[in-house]
This record gives sequence, C-alpha cells and structure tokens, in this order.
Amino acid sequence: MDETELVERLAAIGWKGSRGVILGPGDDAAVLRGGLAVSTDMMVEGVHFSFDWVTPTEAGFRAGAAALSDMAAMGASPEALLVSMALPAGDPELGEALQRGVRAAGDRVGAVIAGGDVSRTPRAVVLDVVVVGRVRDGGVRRSGAQPGDDLWVSGVVGGAAAAVAAWSQGREPAPAARVRFAAPPDRTGLGRALAAQGLASAMIDISDGLVLDAKRLAKASSVAIRVRRDLVPVDTEAGGDLNRALEGGEDYELMFTAHPKGKERVLALERELSVQLTRIGTVGQGADVALEDSEGRQVRPGRGGYDHFADPSGNRG
Amino acid sequence: MDETELVERLAAIGWKGSRGVILGPGDDAAVLRGGLAVSTDMMVEGVHFSFDWVTPTEAGFRAGAAALSDMAAMGASPEALLVSMALPAGDPELGEALQRGVRAAGDRVGAVIAGGDVSRTPRAVVLDVVVVGRVRDGGVRRSGAQPGDDLWVSGVVGGAAAAVAAWSQGREPAPAARVRFAAPPDRTGLGRALAAQGLASAMIDISDGLVLDAKRLAKASSVAIRVRRDLVPVDTEAGGDLNRALEGGEDYELMFTAHPKGKERVLALERELSVQLTRIGTVGQGADVALEDSEGRQVRPGRGGYDHFADPSGNRG
Repeated sequence: MDETELVERLAAIGWKGSRGVILGPGDDAAVLRGGLAVSTDMMVEGVHFSFDWVTPTEAGFRAGAAALSDMAAMGASPEALLVSMALPAGDPELGEALQRGVRAAGDRVGAVIAGGDVSRTPRAVVLDVVVVGRVRDGGVRRSGAQPGDDLWVSGVVGGAAAAVAAWSQGREPAPAARVRFAAPPDRTGLGRALAAQGLASAMIDISDGLVLDAKRLAKASSVAIRVRRDLVPVDTEAGGDLNRALEGGEDYELMFTAHPKGKERVLALERELSVQLTRIGTVGQGADVALEDSEGRQVRPGRGGYDHFADPSGNRG
Repeated sequence: MDETELVERLAAIGWKGSRGVILGPGDDAAVLRGGLAVSTDMMVEGVHFSFDWVTPTEAGFRAGAAALSDMAAMGASPEALLVSMALPAGDPELGEALQRGVRAAGDRVGAVIAGGDVSRTPRAVVLDVVVVGRVRDGGVRRSGAQPGDDLWVSGVVGGAAAAVAAWSQGREPAPAARVRFAAPPDRTGLGRALAAQGLASAMIDISDGLVLDAKRLAKASSVAIRVRRDLVPVDTEAGGDLNRALEGGEDYELMFTAHPKGKERVLALERELSVQLTRIGTVGQGADVALEDSEGRQVRPGRGGYDHFADPSGNRG
C-alpha cells in the first residue's frame, strides 16, 4: 500500500460528512462552515529532511512553508499556525531553533504561531504544523477542473529534488538547489489572487511531484490531464532535469487549471506578482494523466512522485 | 528546562499578537476571530503510551479523547479533527487501527475527521490530533479565576496514573485502572454547560496532574489556589491514591473555578449530566498553589505533575 492509498483508506475510516465541515478529506485543506480552512503537515527527521542537510531553523522554516503551501493551494489567507514537536529530551535549544524557523515562514505571510504542543521522543524529531486560514466561497478545490481548461504551474520545478539527490549521494548540492529545498517559495499571494479573480477552476500544490499531484487533481475533478513535457519549466539553474521536475516533488509550487479565456489575466498576474506562470498542458475528458512530447505523442508516466510512506530506504534521491 | 518552561519559551518565539487571533498560546486552545477554537495534542509511542499497554485502536481513542479534552476545557463544541501520524513503513494496518480509535473518540462527541497527514518514521509512532471547535464569547479561559471563587474538579482522579504505574513496574493494572487510561472520560457536555451558563470563571483539563495544572491556572489568573487535600476525589476503585490523584495526571478531567453563588447550579449540573463534581478548594489573592489538610494546615506541593519533556527514563510510574 502506498501513501496515496493509505491516505484514502484513512479518510474513508474517519469521514462521514458533517454539518459543520463543508469540505472534508481529499483536498489541500478541510473547510469549515464560516470559511475557515485547516490543514496539517507532518515532517519527520530522516524521512523529509536531515540535520546533515539543513540547520534546525531551516528545517522549521521548510516545515512552516510546506504547511502554508496547502493554504496557498486553497486560495486561502493564512492567519495562524500551531506547531507540535517531538524532540530528544534535553535539547530545548533544538526546539527553539525549529520554532524560530516556523515563525519566519509565518512572518512571510503574516500568520502567527497561536499554539502547539511539545513532547520528547526516543529518536527522530517530528514537526507537525497546523495552519488555519480564511477562504471565500469554500476555497479553490482540486475538484473543479473542466475539460477544455489549460493547466498552469508556478515558478520552476525540479530544483529541490536535485538538492535531495545530491545529499542522498553524499554530495553537497549546488547553492541554488540548497536554497530551493531550505526555503520553499511563498505562493500565498498568487493563490489568493487566482481565487479572488475566479481564475483557477482547480488548484493543488505540487509537493509530491508534478505528475503525482496532477493525477490527484485529475482524479478529484474526474478529468484527463495532458502535460506537454517540453513546456515544463525545469529549474536548470538549481541542477534540475526533466525527470526531477516531473517526479521529484519538494518544490511547493502551485499547479492550477483555468479556462482559456483567462489566459491574459493569468499572464497579467505573472507580471504583477513577479511569479513565473507557465501553461504546461490541457484538461480533457477521461481520467488520469498523460505526458506528451512537443509533437503530441503520448508517453504514459509511471506512478510518479515521491511517496513518504512506501519507500523503506530512507533515500530520497 | 522542563516542559512548562520550554512551552513558554516556544510561545514567546512564535507569538506576537494578531488581528485574526483573539486568544494566542498559553490556554487549552487558541481562539480565532469568528469563535473558532483550535488545539493540537501530540502523543509519542514510548513516551505517552506503549503498544504493550494498549491496542492501536485504544491508543488512537486515547489520543482523540485527549485532544478533545482541550476543547471541553474551553467550553467549546468540537466539530472536526485532523489526524497526523508517523508510522513504521509497511504497517498501514496500524494506521487504520489508530484512525478507527480516533474516529470512535470523535463519534462520542459528534466530531468528524476532516483531514490529516501520514508519514513513515524510522521508529516511534507519533500521533498528532488537531481539534477545531466553536466557542461563544471567546471561550472559558485559564485566566478568569477570581479571589473568592471555589475550585471544582470533575470525576475521580488518580486511576489512569495507577495504570501507568502498574505497566511501568511490569504488572498488569486493575481492569478499572486500565479503562481509565485507555478510555478517558468525555467532558464535552460538562464544559459546554459550564460555559453556556456562565458558571466557570476559569477552566483547564488536568492532563498533566491536578497540582501542576492548578499552578497553570493560578499563574494565568494571577491568583493563589488552595487545594483541600482531603476533598480530592481519589479514584480508589482504580487503585488510585492521593499522590497519584495530585501528581499523576493522565485523567483528562476538568478543573474549574466558580463563584460561590454558583454552587447550587454546579450541583444541579452534576445531577443532570451524571458527572461527579467536587469542590476541592478555593481561590485567594496571591500566587501559586498550596495544599491544605482537613484542618487548614498548609503543605507546599512539589513541582507536581508529569513532564513529558524532562523525564529521560521513559518511565511514567
């Protein structure tokens, strides 16, 4: 059973509908009556990061930024974070450094740390960051993509995975790749603008890899997604290549679908917000995700993306 | 540095006030504009529980009930849970059993599991349960106790600590003690009623021990608390003794303060809700917590309570 399957099985156990919850499991965040979005993101030392790779403050920043990325993908305005941490006994300084990192990620978007919990642990440090934000009209979901829409991605992808690959092989990553991993981009403003202007029909953050997250979006919307491989904005500056861009994950960029009529307004946002926005594919009828080369020939992708649950090796490369 | 100190230092790092957050760190939950309360509660295998003590479903139930206890202590109506879990790779059944346990705790109070996260971990299972609920008028806080108030506690205390003591000594606990640990009581209805009737001036759940949590309440309210040792409702049926009742924690009962004029209405609630409610002390001017014997002689307590961060032995007894 891989992570995706397990998450679905856990959701099936836990969820049964609710008057107070207007969006349950299966999206980037749950949405409650009154327009509050809530999500939680767990990072485990030795699985998602290593203190041989990043400093404690960087690990905290990354955990905070990753959690906030779920809010961006809903088009939400983040307001508060709660930080739970399991730490080795006798190392409060580590906890303080992690907290400073999460706080810096919160400061970037104007969200405070309003609570949390702390425990010791016999081994791996665990950070679980909860984010609460506000959405209008239920937020931008994964399920709204329509046949005929364009598929867009923000920024450049594959750089963070290049850093992980280097570390996993015992090398130091290029400085640009290290930054991509240690300091994920903030797409809060982009997500809010896409939501406010009604431009994005569906949205997801590509934390687990472009192809895997495209599959999630396709499944939630009951559509087929075609990705033009040659259009994917590969983060070559950070040592990214096409495979890492498609499968590597870790980038925390946004992927969204938009009606073709919205193209000019999307490109206007690109200029306003100084965020690269690239049309990388289209939405059609059907199911699943297909890769196309520049001549429209299809290559069916593998499962794609990194699976935090299935990989027993601890090796992220 | 003990857990209390570390929590305070982390709060000082993370918190700086916010327009959207009307109650920040330092209470049982944060409260957001619009009346939403949010809290998070982390349980680590080998620290808070062991699979030698309880089944995975019981561990999940306990984690859910513990998280929900924070809502009860705010007088909140819980609506949704989010469950993050770190699991050994290749053990999805464990995750499903934990989730079923959390769900059962949610079912008891009508709260659904609206999301979560899952990761593998190199060792100890970690469960972090987030609860979102609704409060009126900002919720019942730790900070509202007034000199002259009475101090009350729900249920009986010391039973769960007796179970932990038995397990830690390699013995099986008495069946009643085991139940106290595996299935903490639900005080949601009591918390809501105390809030709705304006009876509780301050409230906290006594998860870390009656004396330690009384100190937290005293500190938050800037008052002194006197506990009449002989009035504490010791859970003798479950093998509890006075020390465990005062220091053991794990019970998830509510402790609250109320104006003496409210006494009859508190006792009416006891009958209505079939929850034992015991007046165990009084609030005065000053600071800290004092224990009194039946003749009013004071015994100053030790630090009190169990500290999940400081104890390096893994031994909860």
